[in-house]
Amino acid sequence: MKTIAILGSTGSIGRNTLEVVKQHPDRFQVTALAAGSNADEMVKQVETFRPKIVSMATEQAAQQVRERASYPVDVISGEAGLLEVAAHSDASDVMSALVGSRGLPPTLAAIRAGKTIHLANKETLVMAGAIVMAEAKRHGVAILPVDSEHSAIFQCLNGERKRDVRRLIVTASGGAFRDWSRKQLAHATREQALTHPNWSMGAKVTIDSATMMNKGLEVMEARWLFDLSYDQIDVLIHPESIIHSMVEFEDGAVMAQLGTPDMKGPIQYALSYPERWPLETKRLNLAEVGRLHFREADMERYPCLRMAYEAGRAGGTVPTVLNAANEVAVERFLDGEITFLEIESMIEEVLSRHIPQANPDLEALFEADRWAREAARRCGAQAG
Amino acid sequence: MKTIAILGSTGSIGRNTLEVVKQHPDRFQVTALAAGSNADEMVKQVETFRPKIVSMATEQAAQQVRERASYPVDVISGEAGLLEVAAHSDASDVMSALVGSRGLPPTLAAIRAGKTIHLANKETLVMAGAIVMAEAKRHGVAILPVDSEHSAIFQCLNGERKRDVRRLIVTASGGAFRDWSRKQLAHATREQALTHPNWSMGAKVTIDSATMMNKGLEVMEARWLFDLSYDQIDVLIHPESIIHSMVEFEDGAVMAQLGTPDMKGPIQYALSYPERWPLETKRLNLAEVGRLHFREADMERYPCLRMAYEAGRAGGTVPTVLNAANEVAVERFLDGEITFLEIESMIEEVLSRHIPQANPDLEALFEADRWAREAARRCGAQAG
Repeated sequence: MKTIAILGSTGSIGRNTLEVVKQHPDRFQVTALAAGSNADEMVKQVETFRPKIVSMATEQAAQQVRERASYPVDVISGEAGLLEVAAHSDASDVMSALVGSRGLPPTLAAIRAGKTIHLANKETLVMAGAIVMAEAKRHGVAILPVDSEHSAIFQCLNGERKRDVRRLIVTASGGAFRDWSRKQLAHATREQALTHPNWSMGAKVTIDSATMMNKGLEVMEARWLFDLSYDQIDVLIHPESIIHSMVEFEDGAVMAQLGTPDMKGPIQYALSYPERWPLETKRLNLAEVGRLHFREADMERYPCLRMAYEAGRAGGTVPTVLNAANEVAVERFLDGEITFLEIESMIEEVLSRHIPQANPDLEALFEADRWAREAARRCGAQAG
Repeated sequence: MKTIAILGSTGSIGRNTLEVVKQHPDRFQVTALAAGSNADEMVKQVETFRPKIVSMATEQAAQQVRERASYPVDVISGEAGLLEVAAHSDASDVMSALVGSRGLPPTLAAIRAGKTIHLANKETLVMAGAIVMAEAKRHGVAILPVDSEHSAIFQCLNGERKRDVRRLIVTASGGAFRDWSRKQLAHATREQALTHPNWSMGAKVTIDSATMMNKGLEVMEARWLFDLSYDQIDVLIHPESIIHSMVEFEDGAVMAQLGTPDMKGPIQYALSYPERWPLETKRLNLAEVGRLHFREADMERYPCLRMAYEAGRAGGTVPTVLNAANEVAVERFLDGEITFLEIESMIEEVLSRHIPQANPDLEALFEADRWAREAARRCGAQAG
């Protein structure tokens, strides 16, 4: 029986994690949940999974959960509440599924508390890969990927030696605008950008998928998760998202993991590893799919991907700045303040103004994060 | 340093094995070679790889090799010579790459002598899977697959638990006549049948690929190699032969092994397992390939595949009879005695006349083999 804490339980990954837990009542016990302000959903989760402790982002939301729970669950709130759920609950495993940079501190706290980490929060490794992986090593903690791409690579590496790896091939659907020209992109609307061809995800991730920043962040995560150089990580456009990613070995063999687009697969694999457990999910039928397509990921067509590789190679505070600028830019695009193509020009502008710092500590990373957000917000003011 | 004996060193798999050996002079020593009557090729191999012992099918061929070798290599011949090379040389590893049922006795002898088996000979498992796997278990001997499909499955199973496997998906190019109707097949010529779309192989295997009997034999081999039921082994048409085969697990994940069509990959994997070593071979470029196609393997379109599943499920002497009838039928098609579609009707006829025997010993299997060959030869006489 695994005892689990879920950070971000009311989000897409959080809900899918609870779906997996529901399919295996004999294998899991949910001991702690943390979410933002969705008290309604949290109350439902509390009633179904009966955690001992719950944390909400605000005290107001916490109070709502407290009042409506049918049993005396411990409901706390704020940054402290999040850290409490991550590190001090009696969970053996922590699902880190918050969106954005606020996912980093509780994930790091969980690592330091010796929890097994199931990592869906991208920013943890994008911002602080060096620090996080060093801490994980120090505490003997496993960091298991939950993203479908990283889960695929992790599965392809099963039973293999790292020294035999030639390169990782991260597949990319190409997002909502895969077949649009740069010219057409100038007029892309919020609604068009939010229509992902294959996966049902949150708004931020869906926009990141349309700009391919998502893939850039995944490349950076892969660099840290699998301890490889950026030269060993390639991106390949694969519109159908059936091959979730691949690994090419020194002998020329390529191992791939395939599946239907259902996050329950990668989530359960992280939780069941090194075993596999039965999972109710749509089965892959390749004869029905009929064909799979592949093409190069063009760095000129996708400047966000290019910038991500550049930021990753630069290291230090640069990935943090890229990520923060992107978060603000996407937010502002979703708010209708800037156009789709201004997302990338805004990030480029913020990056060009940043003075990189090598080997930053956490404080320096958060300072760079704040600086980049502020700079990205000001970009708009200047442009407007 | 691995010491290797190669049975069938002048054939396609044998030559490719020596190519692999040549790429790793520090890892391998060839101690013994066995071949048919190609003395010219054997003399070249002897000079290059300096084995201690060589066996040829006939004493005449052996004498030629003996006379032309530049050092005093021990050259023997016949069935006894083959068994000597397989079992009594000082090789740790035996590459079993003879074509046809004559590959079975030396492979079994090598197993009993405790050699690690690299298995390319289909008939070993098709005819005597139960006996061979039991002997391998008894002698603690590993049987490593060399066929690209079985190697792919073996690679997909790396690090996995057998109980987590839902099914194997053996891919099939569909052979030379993939896009031909049954009506067109009636007029298929020898030359047309010998044009395989992807792989360069011997004549027998190429015809088996056109009838899909090849895939049927592979399904039977897979049943024994991976100890699964026929219900757990599916065939999928994949014209490009890029995905060499797949495994679907209980959690819905599908693992696949991909590569360019070069037998050196699977051969080296069997020899290097569980490691992977650098190999000079054409690298897979999926963006260049562009697309992969898949469709169901239709049992009505491919009666040989249907008959193989039926023979496999029937067990006993039936797979041996299927295989022997097929060998004779293909031989006679290559000799211009029968038409392409008569291959399958001839096998069907021989099977219909066979009285199956359950749990046969080796002697009974070889008796069934002889009976089926004779019956297949007579089929022609009656038809003519």
